Amino acid sequence: MTTASAVKTNNVEEQAKKARKAAKTLSILTTEEKNEALHTVADDLETGYESILAANMADLKNGKENGFEEAYMDRLSLTKERVFEFAAGLRQVAELPDPVGDVMSGWTLDNGLKVEEVRVPLGVIGMIYEARPNVTADAAGLALKSGNAIVLKGGSSALNSNQAIVEIIHGALEKTKIPKEAVQFIATADREAAMQLFTMKEHIDVLIPRGGASLIKAVVENATVPVLETGVGNCHIYVDKEANPEKAINILVNAKTDRPAVCNAAETLIVHEAWLNQHKDLLAEALKKHGITVHGDKAAAKALPNVVPVSESDWANEYLSLDLAVKTVDSLEQAIDHIDRYGTKHSEAIITENGETAKRFMQLTDAAALYHNASTRFTDGGALGFGAEIGISTQKLHARGPMGLPALTTRKYLMSGNGQIR
Amino acid sequence: MTTASAVKTNNVEEQAKKARKAAKTLSILTTEEKNEALHTVADDLETGYESILAANMADLKNGKENGFEEAYMDRLSLTKERVFEFAAGLRQVAELPDPVGDVMSGWTLDNGLKVEEVRVPLGVIGMIYEARPNVTADAAGLALKSGNAIVLKGGSSALNSNQAIVEIIHGALEKTKIPKEAVQFIATADREAAMQLFTMKEHIDVLIPRGGASLIKAVVENATVPVLETGVGNCHIYVDKEANPEKAINILVNAKTDRPAVCNAAETLIVHEAWLNQHKDLLAEALKKHGITVHGDKAAAKALPNVVPVSESDWANEYLSLDLAVKTVDSLEQAIDHIDRYGTKHSEAIITENGETAKRFMQLTDAAALYHNASTRFTDGGALGFGAEIGISTQKLHARGPMGLPALTTRKYLMSGNGQIR
Repeated sequence: MTTASAVKTNNVEEQAKKARKAAKTLSILTTEEKNEALHTVADDLETGYESILAANMADLKNGKENGFEEAYMDRLSLTKERVFEFAAGLRQVAELPDPVGDVMSGWTLDNGLKVEEVRVPLGVIGMIYEARPNVTADAAGLALKSGNAIVLKGGSSALNSNQAIVEIIHGALEKTKIPKEAVQFIATADREAAMQLFTMKEHIDVLIPRGGASLIKAVVENATVPVLETGVGNCHIYVDKEANPEKAINILVNAKTDRPAVCNAAETLIVHEAWLNQHKDLLAEALKKHGITVHGDKAAAKALPNVVPVSESDWANEYLSLDLAVKTVDSLEQAIDHIDRYGTKHSEAIITENGETAKRFMQLTDAAALYHNASTRFTDGGALGFGAEIGISTQKLHARGPMGLPALTTRKYLMSGNGQIR
Repeated sequence: MTTASAVKTNNVEEQAKKARKAAKTLSILTTEEKNEALHTVADDLETGYESILAANMADLKNGKENGFEEAYMDRLSLTKERVFEFAAGLRQVAELPDPVGDVMSGWTLDNGLKVEEVRVPLGVIGMIYEARPNVTADAAGLALKSGNAIVLKGGSSALNSNQAIVEIIHGALEKTKIPKEAVQFIATADREAAMQLFTMKEHIDVLIPRGGASLIKAVVENATVPVLETGVGNCHIYVDKEANPEKAINILVNAKTDRPAVCNAAETLIVHEAWLNQHKDLLAEALKKHGITVHGDKAAAKALPNVVPVSESDWANEYLSLDLAVKTVDSLEQAIDHIDRYGTKHSEAIITENGETAKRFMQLTDAAALYHNASTRFTDGGALGFGAEIGISTQKLHARGPMGLPALTTRKYLMSGNGQIR
């Protein structure tokens, strides 16, 4: 079967070249042709779910033998419902507006030369990711809709699941206008294969790493292909001296406990000493009620019960758990300095009833998303109304914050003349 | 004198830290405050031109002793008029719209959370460039107007000229709201200093290399700081079988000879064999008249006189001279394949009277600027009406084509609520 053999090849450069070639065909398909293909893939994922679950069983068995943690096994594990969610996700992507072909601006020079700035696909996306097999379907869907080919390198622990998903995608694409070569899957557990992508500038236009901090760091530090950096979020809630206690505590609890393992969860409470001293009992009660472990500085330890002494690494790391670092300050400037030093430029919130203080915080703090009196949990493509997202950019170039389809495009300037010279 | 000592320090990291600090102050200045500062710098460059010329004399003397080529010496050489052009350039930048603070989009979620996407400065720009001392003033002006601090590392051969320019900038900024630390100059000929900037992710937000291909390659391959790649242009003119001969020859001659040393000049003529055979005498006459040396393939050598046999390197390199590579093809697809293989994604032109052929060329060719019946020479911030440019991006992420002030900005999402949680 050609599909299976295509999936199993290990020659990364060959695969990237095939993706490049397919990208050209894909780049000029109509929105309807792309949407139709996404629906076909969605249908086939549903009808073929059993083969995905069988492959997933093999991955889970390997994971168990390797003694993976429960949380990790949970991320790896698929059910019929989860596979149907992939399909639903693809249908949602089909509904999103197609960014390709958008005329972003246009004008005519005095000499009659017409200029149009038009959105076009990036070309070939290299996606390097960890355990969750849903990324395979999600990323492929977003790439195809935006007219891009994609080279997928998933984590070794999900190799069978990812491969089964890609086989279904390939089978479905054969029935559509999108060449199946537009989705390349590097079917090996070998890390070397991912590293080959790092420098393949000729064939890959952008690398998107999705996973833990160490994966992202490895890509950013070693890739010569441009990178869209995603995901690491060491988010702070700054409770100002003029914070409304109810709002402050509700927001803190939500940002910390709603989904502690995600990147827009809060990791550190920065609290004005005056506010802390006034509202310490209320705060202590809420922290206790929600099972939050406080790692605090001296002033926090004085005001709150059961405080674990904080260490330097507490300020810098994402806990991704019900742990919370607490830093006390006596000015807005100290709060901003702390965020400058330890933040990851993802999402930062201030709770205050003083509009001027909020404005200053939002102006002077350097992050993708700044919140006044709201939870950091809203930094999410779905929550903000962007539709599906390929990740949350914590870098400043190209895209910042949740990245929807337009982040997977670039532009061309198209100039039409009748002989104009300079 | 503090100015001189600040200029002379060699501790690159210290300088980058100072720039980071100054960037924060600069980021919240008003447009008026920034424009006033640019005018002050412009005035002081004019009144202080003699000190710049004296420093330039020292550079020219060193250059002569080191046996630099004439073209290189010309780029290095300053006159009173050139210095006054720097000043005029800064005044033009002051006239440009300020991108900072632009609300790019805004909406309100169902829960009442207000979202605004606002343009903000990138922060600290690292500029690594070669001989032309005008870059010192131009880049500083564009950075400051867009609210960014800048760390300048110019070429060693222009060290004295650049330093004299920066001393005047510093003296002028002391009279304004912009902290003079916002312009840092690395006053050493040491290449090691530039390389320190490559990995200074904490302090530098983006590196912009301006100069020859080898400088740009060194930055792209070694920097972990994000790079805005500029400038290398191996541009092609494709003369289709349905090209109007007069337009084709006018455009080719203009693109090749108007300014052969710039990146938007044409380096290769790709010509349809049928057209070539029909119009070879006209073409030969024009090439001869304009002193163009042809490096051609076999079919070109058969059709045209005095053809130097072409080698693989001719297809790939920028001549930046009156040399022209000539490739004959017998289809549009062959032309696009050639550009895919050797182009630098800068500017590519098709000459044809067939609108469908032109459309296909512009869709399938991957470059920042695509031209139909016009010269590639228009890929230029000034010519396209962008105002001053910091360079021409040949990459796909963040900015593509001529980069004006908006390319030096990023965005923040500002969320204002009254206690919203998820």
